[in-house]
Amino acid sequence: MGRATVRRQVLRLRDETSTHRPDTLAGEEPMEIRVGGKALTVTMRTPGSDFDLAAGFLVGEGVVHHAEEITGIRYCAGATADGSNTYNVVDVALAPGTTLPEPSLERNFYTTSSCGLCGKASLDAVRTTTRWSLAEDRTTIDPEVVYSLPDRLRAAQRVFDSTGGLHAAGLFSTDGELLALREDVGRHNAVDKLVGHALRQGWLPLRGAVLMVSGRASFELVQKAAMAGIPVLAAVSAPSSLAVDLAGETGLTLMGFLRGRSVNVYSRTERLRVPEPVG
Amino acid sequence: MGRATVRRQVLRLRDETSTHRPDTLAGEEPMEIRVGGKALTVTMRTPGSDFDLAAGFLVGEGVVHHAEEITGIRYCAGATADGSNTYNVVDVALAPGTTLPEPSLERNFYTTSSCGLCGKASLDAVRTTTRWSLAEDRTTIDPEVVYSLPDRLRAAQRVFDSTGGLHAAGLFSTDGELLALREDVGRHNAVDKLVGHALRQGWLPLRGAVLMVSGRASFELVQKAAMAGIPVLAAVSAPSSLAVDLAGETGLTLMGFLRGRSVNVYSRTERLRVPEPVG
Repeated sequence: MGRATVRRQVLRLRDETSTHRPDTLAGEEPMEIRVGGKALTVTMRTPGSDFDLAAGFLVGEGVVHHAEEITGIRYCAGATADGSNTYNVVDVALAPGTTLPEPSLERNFYTTSSCGLCGKASLDAVRTTTRWSLAEDRTTIDPEVVYSLPDRLRAAQRVFDSTGGLHAAGLFSTDGELLALREDVGRHNAVDKLVGHALRQGWLPLRGAVLMVSGRASFELVQKAAMAGIPVLAAVSAPSSLAVDLAGETGLTLMGFLRGRSVNVYSRTERLRVPEPVG
Repeated sequence: MGRATVRRQVLRLRDETSTHRPDTLAGEEPMEIRVGGKALTVTMRTPGSDFDLAAGFLVGEGVVHHAEEITGIRYCAGATADGSNTYNVVDVALAPGTTLPEPSLERNFYTTSSCGLCGKASLDAVRTTTRWSLAEDRTTIDPEVVYSLPDRLRAAQRVFDSTGGLHAAGLFSTDGELLALREDVGRHNAVDKLVGHALRQGWLPLRGAVLMVSGRASFELVQKAAMAGIPVLAAVSAPSSLAVDLAGETGLTLMGFLRGRSVNVYSRTERLRVPEPVG
């Protein structure tokens, strides 16, 4: 069963020193919401309060307004190939007369073949597969360049200072040269804009490039970086557990908590040009 | 045409004083991405670099890998009822032989941890309508209670301090009493969990309640609050332009930049028990 927090080993760089240590990450796993056995949507969430999440989602969509309109909520056992319960598929039973307004719902929702989905299978379904092999990208980067990225990103931002409301994504060379910058209220949009620009410039795959984002690193940002062939992703704030797992699988170097002269490296640490870790 | 920033009048409270002043907000508008004229997805984005956004989205979905696979990108004129060009609908033409793999298309419609609306396939599907009338909710709140909310929220958070990776959403009475708290990697999930809990407790509509969120206030959070009948929403960081607009329309009091003894009130300012503004 999924957990709210997950422990992972991390390489911590501070100034010129490096140490291995365990780090606690926010859990992130896909949850499929079904109504009457029919798959409605998959959301990437932190496990916990899953029945509340399913109920609240249906309030937000205007499907239910009172507790009595929900007659039951349960985890679907046997949703996986081996029949185990992943606790990542939740089925909501509605009272007679409570119906899904089809016209608005059918378009919103991720739909799948009606059965055979489980945490693993839904995760597979939200995953895309990159054609670029990040694992073979021999890029390395100096920690001093990494430490300089947040200031370079902020210096280049045009809108953030005036509104405080935009996320930024910057594409850098391993020398710290800014190749492009995009801003958006949505982190994923800022990255899409950057990748789209790179595509239209004929830069894909972005071998040897470093993606720097304000805020956190989620599963989807790692996926978007991998789809563009970017081998290194650095975030100002925390990564989620699934972001770290996907980075490890795809061969991407994921860094988080990049602040001042300090950063955590969660995967593919060999791309950082650092001395042997202490301790 | 949409703009990256938007000016709005705001009531600024600091200690015991209040002033009206203009504020610059990050623009947020829905953009529908079409391929070959067919609606694929809607994303809530900051206007600007829209063609890059559409191209980058298709890279992330594994549809295109090289610039030549896109033969054209344009704004759709006449997408609205009156035939005007909103610059919010973008159509991408793909080269012959580049096709949308249907099975992967279904991937577009999942809800990511950063945006609960981005899976929706068309602009029409974005808005939901609340059955509770917020405008008639006579709730008022003392600024001293508002100033106390961030500390109360942080004190109640269990996971944030250990990971730095979770958003929190808290439901308070107007006396500042914490009614419930939920955390998640996704802001919208934290709010869904809170609203789902309230629904199951029989608390809906949440008249007289205050929703406090870490981070920013987007369109979708205002919408979720309105769907639950919550009259007051306070955020630690900036609201988007569309969040302010929707709050005004639905009669919700939206506050942002709630830090220390200072807060900005963007709509329905009469719910704050403050002296007459200066200047």
